[in-house]
Amino acid sequence: MTIGVCYFPEHWPSEEWERDVEEMAAAGIDTVRMGEFAWSRIEPERGEIDLDWLAEAIDLLGEHDIDVVLCTPTATPPKWLVDEDPSILQEEADGTTREFGSRRHYCFNSEAYREETERIVRIVAERFRDDPRVVGWQTDNEFGVHGTIRCYCEDCAGAFREWLEERYGDVDALNEAWGTTFWSQHHTEFAEVDPPRHTAAEHHPSRLLDYYRFSSDSAVAYNEFQADLLREVNDDWWITHNFMGQFGSLDAYDASDQLDLVSWDNYPNGFVQDRQTGEPGLDELRAGDPDQVALNHDIYRSALDRPFWVMEQQPGDVNWAAHAPQPGEGAMTLWAHHAVAHGASNVLYFRWRRCREGQEQYHAGLRKQDGSPDRGYHEATRAATELDEVLDGTGTTAVADAPNPVETQAALLHDYENLWATGIQPHAADFDYWEHLLAYYRALRARGVDVDIVPPSNTLSTYDAVVAPTPYLVDNDLASRLDEYVRSGGELLLTIRSGVKDRHNKLQERQQPGPLAPLADVTVDQHETLPSSVDLDIEYRGNRYAYRTWAEWLTDVGEHGSGTTVVHGRLQTDGTTDRAAITHSTVGDGGVTYCGVWPETELAEAVVTDLLDRADVAYTDRLPDGVRVARRTEATWLLNFTGDEVAFALDGETRRVDPYSATPTVYDGADITVE
Amino acid sequence: MTIGVCYFPEHWPSEEWERDVEEMAAAGIDTVRMGEFAWSRIEPERGEIDLDWLAEAIDLLGEHDIDVVLCTPTATPPKWLVDEDPSILQEEADGTTREFGSRRHYCFNSEAYREETERIVRIVAERFRDDPRVVGWQTDNEFGVHGTIRCYCEDCAGAFREWLEERYGDVDALNEAWGTTFWSQHHTEFAEVDPPRHTAAEHHPSRLLDYYRFSSDSAVAYNEFQADLLREVNDDWWITHNFMGQFGSLDAYDASDQLDLVSWDNYPNGFVQDRQTGEPGLDELRAGDPDQVALNHDIYRSALDRPFWVMEQQPGDVNWAAHAPQPGEGAMTLWAHHAVAHGASNVLYFRWRRCREGQEQYHAGLRKQDGSPDRGYHEATRAATELDEVLDGTGTTAVADAPNPVETQAALLHDYENLWATGIQPHAADFDYWEHLLAYYRALRARGVDVDIVPPSNTLSTYDAVVAPTPYLVDNDLASRLDEYVRSGGELLLTIRSGVKDRHNKLQERQQPGPLAPLADVTVDQHETLPSSVDLDIEYRGNRYAYRTWAEWLTDVGEHGSGTTVVHGRLQTDGTTDRAAITHSTVGDGGVTYCGVWPETELAEAVVTDLLDRADVAYTDRLPDGVRVARRTEATWLLNFTGDEVAFALDGETRRVDPYSATPTVYDGADITVE
Amino acid sequence: MTIGVCYFPEHWPSEEWERDVEEMAAAGIDTVRMGEFAWSRIEPERGEIDLDWLAEAIDLLGEHDIDVVLCTPTATPPKWLVDEDPSILQEEADGTTREFGSRRHYCFNSEAYREETERIVRIVAERFRDDPRVVGWQTDNEFGVHGTIRCYCEDCAGAFREWLEERYGDVDALNEAWGTTFWSQHHTEFAEVDPPRHTAAEHHPSRLLDYYRFSSDSAVAYNEFQADLLREVNDDWWITHNFMGQFGSLDAYDASDQLDLVSWDNYPNGFVQDRQTGEPGLDELRAGDPDQVALNHDIYRSALDRPFWVMEQQPGDVNWAAHAPQPGEGAMTLWAHHAVAHGASNVLYFRWRRCREGQEQYHAGLRKQDGSPDRGYHEATRAATELDEVLDGTGTTAVADAPNPVETQAALLHDYENLWATGIQPHAADFDYWEHLLAYYRALRARGVDVDIVPPSNTLSTYDAVVAPTPYLVDNDLASRLDEYVRSGGELLLTIRSGVKDRHNKLQERQQPGPLAPLADVTVDQHETLPSSVDLDIEYRGNRYAYRTWAEWLTDVGEHGSGTTVVHGRLQTDGTTDRAAITHSTVGDGGVTYCGVWPETELAEAVVTDLLDRADVAYTDRLPDGVRVARRTEATWLLNFTGDEVAFALDGETRRVDPYSATPTVYDGADITVE
Repeated sequence: MTIGVCYFPEHWPSEEWERDVEEMAAAGIDTVRMGEFAWSRIEPERGEIDLDWLAEAIDLLGEHDIDVVLCTPTATPPKWLVDEDPSILQEEADGTTREFGSRRHYCFNSEAYREETERIVRIVAERFRDDPRVVGWQTDNEFGVHGTIRCYCEDCAGAFREWLEERYGDVDALNEAWGTTFWSQHHTEFAEVDPPRHTAAEHHPSRLLDYYRFSSDSAVAYNEFQADLLREVNDDWWITHNFMGQFGSLDAYDASDQLDLVSWDNYPNGFVQDRQTGEPGLDELRAGDPDQVALNHDIYRSALDRPFWVMEQQPGDVNWAAHAPQPGEGAMTLWAHHAVAHGASNVLYFRWRRCREGQEQYHAGLRKQDGSPDRGYHEATRAATELDEVLDGTGTTAVADAPNPVETQAALLHDYENLWATGIQPHAADFDYWEHLLAYYRALRARGVDVDIVPPSNTLSTYDAVVAPTPYLVDNDLASRLDEYVRSGGELLLTIRSGVKDRHNKLQERQQPGPLAPLADVTVDQHETLPSSVDLDIEYRGNRYAYRTWAEWLTDVGEHGSGTTVVHGRLQTDGTTDRAAITHSTVGDGGVTYCGVWPETELAEAVVTDLLDRADVAYTDRLPDGVRVARRTEATWLLNFTGDEVAFALDGETRRVDPYSATPTVYDGADITVE
Repeated sequence: MTIGVCYFPEHWPSEEWERDVEEMAAAGIDTVRMGEFAWSRIEPERGEIDLDWLAEAIDLLGEHDIDVVLCTPTATPPKWLVDEDPSILQEEADGTTREFGSRRHYCFNSEAYREETERIVRIVAERFRDDPRVVGWQTDNEFGVHGTIRCYCEDCAGAFREWLEERYGDVDALNEAWGTTFWSQHHTEFAEVDPPRHTAAEHHPSRLLDYYRFSSDSAVAYNEFQADLLREVNDDWWITHNFMGQFGSLDAYDASDQLDLVSWDNYPNGFVQDRQTGEPGLDELRAGDPDQVALNHDIYRSALDRPFWVMEQQPGDVNWAAHAPQPGEGAMTLWAHHAVAHGASNVLYFRWRRCREGQEQYHAGLRKQDGSPDRGYHEATRAATELDEVLDGTGTTAVADAPNPVETQAALLHDYENLWATGIQPHAADFDYWEHLLAYYRALRARGVDVDIVPPSNTLSTYDAVVAPTPYLVDNDLASRLDEYVRSGGELLLTIRSGVKDRHNKLQERQQPGPLAPLADVTVDQHETLPSSVDLDIEYRGNRYAYRTWAEWLTDVGEHGSGTTVVHGRLQTDGTTDRAAITHSTVGDGGVTYCGVWPETELAEAVVTDLLDRADVAYTDRLPDGVRVARRTEATWLLNFTGDEVAFALDGETRRVDPYSATPTVYDGADITVE
Repeated sequence: MTIGVCYFPEHWPSEEWERDVEEMAAAGIDTVRMGEFAWSRIEPERGEIDLDWLAEAIDLLGEHDIDVVLCTPTATPPKWLVDEDPSILQEEADGTTREFGSRRHYCFNSEAYREETERIVRIVAERFRDDPRVVGWQTDNEFGVHGTIRCYCEDCAGAFREWLEERYGDVDALNEAWGTTFWSQHHTEFAEVDPPRHTAAEHHPSRLLDYYRFSSDSAVAYNEFQADLLREVNDDWWITHNFMGQFGSLDAYDASDQLDLVSWDNYPNGFVQDRQTGEPGLDELRAGDPDQVALNHDIYRSALDRPFWVMEQQPGDVNWAAHAPQPGEGAMTLWAHHAVAHGASNVLYFRWRRCREGQEQYHAGLRKQDGSPDRGYHEATRAATELDEVLDGTGTTAVADAPNPVETQAALLHDYENLWATGIQPHAADFDYWEHLLAYYRALRARGVDVDIVPPSNTLSTYDAVVAPTPYLVDNDLASRLDEYVRSGGELLLTIRSGVKDRHNKLQERQQPGPLAPLADVTVDQHETLPSSVDLDIEYRGNRYAYRTWAEWLTDVGEHGSGTTVVHGRLQTDGTTDRAAITHSTVGDGGVTYCGVWPETELAEAVVTDLLDRADVAYTDRLPDGVRVARRTEATWLLNFTGDEVAFALDGETRRVDPYSATPTVYDGADITVE
């Protein structure tokens, strides 16, 4: 399978389904997802089950050899259920209920909702237990969209207390781990601990971090509960969930562990508006920011080290961002190429047909609401043809045990707990974990380097170079694994805010970078943050570069006895003092770079290419913004997210790529330039 | 009557009333409004009624031949009443009560408050049943000010369910009309439907639109309830209500149907700050934006096709906008001229005397708080004299059956439901219904064209040209009425977002402009919205013009067989494609322009003058910003809202108009220019 | 004593305390504050008291001759106490509870919390009753931080009603004083009056002002309750409280009346970011705004006309502002000099050691979290040495009866009620009481003039010049005291918004400046406010100057018969009219300047130097921004808050002062310039 679509037969008269399915087949669509919001269609009143319509749709799809992915319909419990037991609803931190009327209104920790979940999931799953057209399941839909991972209700209060008791055993251990002497926050029993509801000032960072962990764990456990129910019914089914782009309150790595397949929902020209600061240019409004999108591709591919799916692919203009530009001509095909180049084995456009009712009427489908083909239909058709050609059937490998088609020499470390903990204490109004990660990821992609994005718990020895942006929470185990990685020949890049905290979000007793200090062979004497109104620059290897937001002053350089350490970057903080800020240590067979500022583009690229040189990782010439290269087993993709034609030179041979287009090409070298 | 004032005798010692009334008479004031917030003065404790003070004030006014408009005092229920039954209070969508302490705290759907309303209205009305000085009544005060049309309390929940049952008959009809399959929003009975309270994400647009309709209807019904009570007591009284400027949550056309006279409250230099985007210049801060103000004059005149009143006219600096500039010297006289030129038969300055107590101490009156004349007193006096001269007594016609003194060849269609529905789904952060309407209204006023602003249900055949900005909700009836209008010789201008939705705020099945497609002879293939950081332009009849925010790509131009259709405007969306965006069709004896972009000033004027040419509507040369012309039966007004003298040429004869001043002049031609 | 530190032994193992104390002594630290958040350490469960740890810490400090200031631990009631009686918690105006989890969650009006306060204060105080090392007490901690002066709970409702009854006697007096006829706000009994909770529109300004007074009084009464408890135990102890910088909701003058010593918490580079508008430059980010800081020094010194303490002095980077710059090299020493120059007798750095746990981990201490010296330790040590030298022991005078070491000829009047009342009705989005006050204060400091900042109730006859920025609430008593001040030879400067309101926040019946009109010899005919997008200027004594935000048009100049009055400043409001705006009257032996615009820097300086000339107050040449001079009995301090060396010329002799440094010098003249 390669190209699919999300389909809502329940929104249309059944007489139109046959035409729909025929036109899907004509476009080369071989996978359809259904059912994720259908509870009230399946069970309009308690116990009145109607699944015949879904069976009929599956039959029709089967007749055209289209595989079906079904969804549990739990994201939208119907009103009759809410009215029976309003305790299933979520609550805001200030106690306001999240009422029925949109979606995701249920609490992950409601026992009552667990029971209803079990009932409805069994009913739907058992009905299609033996249907060979149903190849897999999606649990629920987009856990966490609209800020719904964190709930503050009484069910959560109880579950949090149990979670804490499980984790700490006795309350003294909790008091010790968090450090509750501060501001008299000592607890005498677990029953005293509430969710972090509205307070006059900020909450205790350790309590908040545990609540964020607990909240993510609650969604993960609920996901596992669903996966188990489905596997109980038919353990041949694979199970997936559709994550969102740059979603932070759910640990996608944890949640992936319950799954056979990871998928995510990709809306490039919405994300470029609402998930990064700054004003996007016209090309980005039309085609998205390729690095922002690819960051997600790489996270979700790396989560299980397997091909992933794009479960929802933007099909045209969408409804939820500040503005709704039309995708550039070709961009909707480009996005499918982009996903596949980064390791996707299937891209499902969302949705088949623009819906006439409800909240998403301004969200395009492949077909217009009158049933006629929309721009996306033509582009999806083209994507199916082009990708079929380049993949030559390899995309159809069964999902669960397919090999990862992307080989990488480099990895970026990413830990949701670091995202949460730095979000709790950003220490600068413009500190943003994702933007900082993206700064380094961009530098790698600008040189055509394929990257895995993995949690620090992963095996690192397979990588020649590892970039660790803000490894903030560090314990001795991680420190010694990184040490071993370097001594065995790895090149590691540590950045600002490394090793600041222990796992409980408590300051390390040892000065930053705490347990990483011996490895990095520096001590962070001070850190400071400054607003963008102040121009900041640094000398790195003889040139001056701009940096932003955050700077660290390094001392004890080379005094930790780990290796040979040299200062490569120095800054003047107040006109009088020259302070070390970027260093490199040779340690065992490898090396460690410590970059104590948040680099602007040019510095990030300088530091990263030095890292790649040391690690002997091949890279291209600098690719312009919006122009990217990505490689998987079958081909190398030349990707053009701009509105102008781009001429790539591959080892001297010129390849022209149209605006908003991609060209997969068989080429093994790194000698790629743009003319 | 021409010039009046709003008076609060209850705020001042009765010994001072005689002086007040004498000075009113001296200024030429012949109408006084009283009583709208006096409940706790009338009834300080339950059942202890004191109306003697009001009778005394009326007597005094009568002695000076000043007519009295009384108000029902229901906008501010006293604290003892709230404490007796707190259920009368409104609630926010998140459940927070709107407590006593400001005004408008009661819910329109409280049965308990209806009973109290009946009691107090009868008490006051019966006391003055036979008083000839009381000529009419204002119901309550400014329904909807401070966002109080929409309440989310349990009384509203119950009333909403009844309203829905009334409208839909059975719940299946509601499910069908709204389209509740989407996100499992099916309802099994009316009792399940709640007000759209706080949710994790956005509400269903059909549910929201019905709630907005219901909320407006609730206020309208409450208004009617009061009007009926008053008419029961004395059916010679005329009844009015004082609407606000650019108020959107109450359908003023609906509410006007209950009234004999429409009035509104006009605060030009507050409105220019808080009801439009962008930074106003100094002239606008001093005199307001004449088009913004006139838009309201024209809406309220058109509501009953009669002279209207300005029930409250800004008398000096006011308290509630971001800044409180002094009106320009003359501006307070200018505003009265402006109102009368647009069809007002009476302008009451608000208030007589600056109040020493409460929330509006920073709101000027005609008199200072020490009782001495303030700037406004002199300007009101001048207005009375000047208007008396030009109207020569015609302003004194009885209000209820006076003929509309403004004759128009052009109309602008305005539908509150379109305002609500586009507000629910703006689809661009900067889409604003009022600003879009104003763009076309400005283009008309810049050419001295007098305009009615009417709901689409009005008879259109009397107009030579009709501009329909965003006729968003369209049913077959409206489509065929517009078709008939055009075929009979009318020139119709349709703009962006035409015909998108059915009456239930559900996407038309037929592509935009839906039922208007045969008439417009185009199909909207795509629409897109873009931020102001992107420069947008379009070629229209050989010239390039800027547009903003919204663009539509038209296809099937001329393929609907309605008439002869030509493309006048084309845009390039991504450097590669030329797309039709503005067209004109000849249909029957008339024509339809479809303008698929939101035009900036110059394009709006080009499109509008082309429309006027086709419709054979005379217009002036382009008038500069802040300089306007308006005409009624008695005269043509030359209006200067700028701080510089302006020289008008009327058919060659020069008339100079002072800064911030108006000159009524007898002149019938359209040949007006500004030197 | 001169240099001290805030210490939290409870955060660290007791084995480390001895080292801590030794290093304190080595730095010259002679005072330590402890215990303000220690309740759950002192009483981890109800009735289980442990104060041995504190006794041990005091013993250790005593062995090194370090004095101890103890704190009542009431700012952070422990969770067990909150769970026993949640009614002690505060509530927001919308009814949301301020829950446990940060600090200051208790309500000042909770009787239950009063009982608990009495219990815990007695327990701690009695334990150390006879300990000679304990020299004084701090009540609670930072009343009002995080917006906690105003609470809206039921306990407050009851207390507010009693407060009103006490103040007004009967409810008719309240109705009369507030003016409750407006919008039917009449109350029939005190029991009807609620806290100003959430309403649809703004509250009655008189009700709000009384609620603000009541709220401040509630904190003051709670403070007095604690002070009385402590004095009952040992009346040799002096009592202080640590106020915050530019804190407005608590009347610090009132609260000081209960105290023997006033202290405040000084964080210059946080304040410069979050307590004034505009983007601070790099020097201000590194060293703060000297005038903003000094304004607080002068308020708190003037409160009891005694030396004050800085109870918490920023020790390095801090955690709570938008950005966390490192203080400039030397700035932490400079701040101690600055405080002492303005009359401080002790400066305690906050905190001893960076805390590893809780909300303030990103707040530096004098020692790093690993116990090693941080930047602040070296600078505190230097401050102790340098200040010991210049003060030569005079700093060690007992606190309660020490003479004020700063002699002033000029005073600035400051009244918290004016801050509250103008905040209730700012009348311009950018009107800010503090910024307006600071405009005049800056003009004085730019000329090296030492100033007291006193409430209008203080004796004024000792001052040659008095600046009264916005004396907004004025009664006859104040008017006649100002009149007497002027007639006896004083020079008084009145500014915009003078004499607008009576004490009940009701407009004076007499036109502005109300009771001050005879003295000022002008009437304010009009006022207006304009946005910063409009350029505003005025002619003052032959030159044009910029002003901002607010202008008044003066009439009746010289017609009040008080003296000889001349117009010095005129403005053109609309191109046509010349209006008086700045005047000076000679009255008796003195004079009154009325400045009816908010001056930008140059005009403020022109008006202020004219005032100083008339009052015969000596002043320096204009000092550059960031360069200041301050004088106390022992010396004159040359203060440099910039990153560049500054050369001062004192009567011709050059003194160079390093970047971010201060030089105390013995010099009596005013002839100071900067080269």
